[in-house]
Amino acid sequence: MRVIRAAIFDVFGTVVDWREGVAACAREAFALRGIETDPHAFADAWRAEYQPAMQRIRSGERGYVQLDQLHLENLDRVLSAFGIAEHFDTAARLELNRAWEQLPPWPDSAPGIAAIRATGRLVAPCSNGSIALMSRLARYAGIEWDCILGADVARAYKPDPLAYRRSVAALRLDPAEVVMVAAHNGDLAAARAEGLATAFVPRPSEQGEGQTSDLVPTADWDFVADDMRALAAWLAG
Amino acid sequence: MRVIRAAIFDVFGTVVDWREGVAACAREAFALRGIETDPHAFADAWRAEYQPAMQRIRSGERGYVQLDQLHLENLDRVLSAFGIAEHFDTAARLELNRAWEQLPPWPDSAPGIAAIRATGRLVAPCSNGSIALMSRLARYAGIEWDCILGADVARAYKPDPLAYRRSVAALRLDPAEVVMVAAHNGDLAAARAEGLATAFVPRPSEQGEGQTSDLVPTADWDFVADDMRALAAWLAG
Repeated sequence: MRVIRAAIFDVFGTVVDWREGVAACAREAFALRGIETDPHAFADAWRAEYQPAMQRIRSGERGYVQLDQLHLENLDRVLSAFGIAEHFDTAARLELNRAWEQLPPWPDSAPGIAAIRATGRLVAPCSNGSIALMSRLARYAGIEWDCILGADVARAYKPDPLAYRRSVAALRLDPAEVVMVAAHNGDLAAARAEGLATAFVPRPSEQGEGQTSDLVPTADWDFVADDMRALAAWLAG
Repeated sequence: MRVIRAAIFDVFGTVVDWREGVAACAREAFALRGIETDPHAFADAWRAEYQPAMQRIRSGERGYVQLDQLHLENLDRVLSAFGIAEHFDTAARLELNRAWEQLPPWPDSAPGIAAIRATGRLVAPCSNGSIALMSRLARYAGIEWDCILGADVARAYKPDPLAYRRSVAALRLDPAEVVMVAAHNGDLAAARAEGLATAFVPRPSEQGEGQTSDLVPTADWDFVADDMRALAAWLAG
């Protein structure tokens, strides 16, 4: 086994349950305004705008902007699509946008990450979320990181290779000394292409009951487990 | 009083005692090799190379490189100046360079920063140290940050205005919502010029017994205290 000195994590889906978190905030915002839109359908629609918005930046069509801004633009679009835009002024949109800072962790995330950290390894998110978003989400979810890596540090969105390369460089480590932890096979494939070790932690309810993708590993990742505590035990050797 | 949502900190001198920390590592390295150089004189000489090295980057003469690299280049120069370069091969230099990751905190730093964090505010270093260096130093010093700001995020060295501006932007806050905490008047002057609130915490033994600068505030900073716990009490209102 390689010497792993840091574990970096995908966050939305891997560490926290974005779908239930966003739906909970939407449910509250809708109830206040007497809106009958299904909050899970709303969360799914909002999330569906995520990849296309980042793709315009990955392709170079648009310069780097923080995910908070993309989420807000996507929110405008989704509120209009659901026909409820008139219920949300600017302040209300900014408030609803903070749903992404209030996502519940999966039950094993905080103890698992703490256990990995207790092995002496550095732990950090390598997410497309900004430093601002990740810092506040970590507080909400009770997770202690050593630093925040990912999009803001790299000024690039995963799976752009730069997102992994610059995150690893920020730790002053070799890629082989860093394990990428994710519930998404595509994220791990991109990390492996940059030389990182890979750990798959499936989250079969991330996308709700009908989830069909990322239920199983699609390659021979260095580690596969249902739980971050098992990942900690593996790293502890 | 303004609404302060985050406190960002100078680190070398303000949070940790770089001089005693570097001297302790040098003393150990010298003892192993039978070198009789005074470790404090060595620490002072190494630190004296710090501002000139960064100035070449601030001026645009050189592109941004992490402080770790500057420290290593400065170490080469100082080892030669003391006539002890032949005792340190590349691995030994890299090891001695990690002295900057093993600096003792001032006694009030860890409890004070934890108390500020417990008020709900975000806390982060805004140092010229890299993410790699700051992450490891925080572990060593027992300090929990929400994220690492400063040089690596800004790709600029304080007191370059960009170092403050981009650190504040990374938190998605207005400058007036952020207090810069430092033991150095010059750092606070640069932060104030960018619109940040300012807190002076003097460290009269930072430079050893003969310290003549930064013993007192040289402007009407928003807060002045001998202790970070007092700063926490002020912020808690």
